[in-house]
Amino acid sequence: MSGWLKVVGLGPGADGMVTPEVSAALAEATDIVGYIPYVARVAPRPGLTLHPSDNRVEAERARAALDMARAGARVVVVSSGDPGVFAMAAAVLEVLTPADDALDLQILPGITAMLAAAARAGAPLGHDFCAINLSDNLKPWALVEKRLRLAAEADFAMAFYNPRSKSRPEGFAKVLDLLRGACGPDRLIIFARAVSTPEERLTTVTLAEATPEMADMRTVVLVTNSLGRRAGRFVYSPRSAPEPTAAGAS
Amino acid sequence: MSGWLKVVGLGPGADGMVTPEVSAALAEATDIVGYIPYVARVAPRPGLTLHPSDNRVEAERARAALDMARAGARVVVVSSGDPGVFAMAAAVLEVLTPADDALDLQILPGITAMLAAAARAGAPLGHDFCAINLSDNLKPWALVEKRLRLAAEADFAMAFYNPRSKSRPEGFAKVLDLLRGACGPDRLIIFARAVSTPEERLTTVTLAEATPEMADMRTVVLVTNSLGRRAGRFVYSPRSAPEPTAAGAS
Repeated sequence: MSGWLKVVGLGPGADGMVTPEVSAALAEATDIVGYIPYVARVAPRPGLTLHPSDNRVEAERARAALDMARAGARVVVVSSGDPGVFAMAAAVLEVLTPADDALDLQILPGITAMLAAAARAGAPLGHDFCAINLSDNLKPWALVEKRLRLAAEADFAMAFYNPRSKSRPEGFAKVLDLLRGACGPDRLIIFARAVSTPEERLTTVTLAEATPEMADMRTVVLVTNSLGRRAGRFVYSPRSAPEPTAAGAS
Repeated sequence: MSGWLKVVGLGPGADGMVTPEVSAALAEATDIVGYIPYVARVAPRPGLTLHPSDNRVEAERARAALDMARAGARVVVVSSGDPGVFAMAAAVLEVLTPADDALDLQILPGITAMLAAAARAGAPLGHDFCAINLSDNLKPWALVEKRLRLAAEADFAMAFYNPRSKSRPEGFAKVLDLLRGACGPDRLIIFARAVSTPEERLTTVTLAEATPEMADMRTVVLVTNSLGRRAGRFVYSPRSAPEPTAAGAS
């Protein structure tokens, strides 16, 4: 028996954004492991066992997947989007042991939510940008705020994952307040919900107009850099940044 | 006639990383527009005209593509990776005119180089991260350095596109010097060249060991955050960041 483990990204939702190499891995698998709604995206078939699990059990899920692969199963761990962006790739590597050096372990990229959302919106991440997970499950809130301030000072375009949760409804309101102070009221912000699914909804407003309720846990939030602008129904951050003037920022 | 324009990402190189919706767009196109090596990735067929053009003519290329679509052609503008990450999506939107509001214009995402490289390496971008284009063709070098310093202060994992070019061979050496000062000599850095192609080569070293010659224009460079570590042949930035101690960073 030669088991293997592939940690794959299913993209944001549409079948047309699942890469052929990920589809091939799913077709060859004996076992699919992942968060309930992501496992539900894999069609059942004879010979395939689905192992859905709840949120916040990533380490246990990763250990179970490794155990099955060590025992000879062909295991696919599924993430939405890309497995390396706030998803299962790091969770698997965190529980890898030296005995796994011989294991056939591959990570297969996917279309991550921010890039699917950016494509729908235009090119809001068309210049230097950052991606921040706004969940404070795994890091202190002070670190989130510090990163937001430095990202604004760097004039990065920004992408935010996990903007809101039931357990901290006030967090995203604080983020919007901080951004209004750091970036000004006219900066463009895009709320992209469930991109590429039937529930897709895109809303572009200024920071002055933005409210926390515009985001839920299926929303990725994008903010242009200071040069961001509209072009018809699209939004983009220009490729160029001008030379600073004598009065400009340092 | 009903022309359209699709700005698509071909992914990093392998056919297995081209999304089905991008393959479908290529199959329906009458005209393919893009930088020479990217157009060369599209197979010729009867009824398809290839329009390869040189680097640094992005605006002219975008205008030509729009002109053809307005005239009724089915035009695909190809980028490597994702069109919204330092590629053609912003270039097209920069030359869009109000008369184009009725044009059928779509942007289709692709697997961007940094995420393909990250998947090969493990999960070096598994925590908050930033993406910086090190080319100073379109922005002042001082802005590149400012963003590097702030990204290090934010403890972002980092991805660098276009690390080296013939026209500024000294720039990347300066980047490495700055990073060694800001992140310390032991930080892990990954040079990922031509990922998913036959020329793929992955090199992981510490910043102390890194030299400018490890990168060329086909290389994307990744740096873990301060908690980055190895796990067997893989490298990752952990999902968690600890609560700061009294003696820790502000």
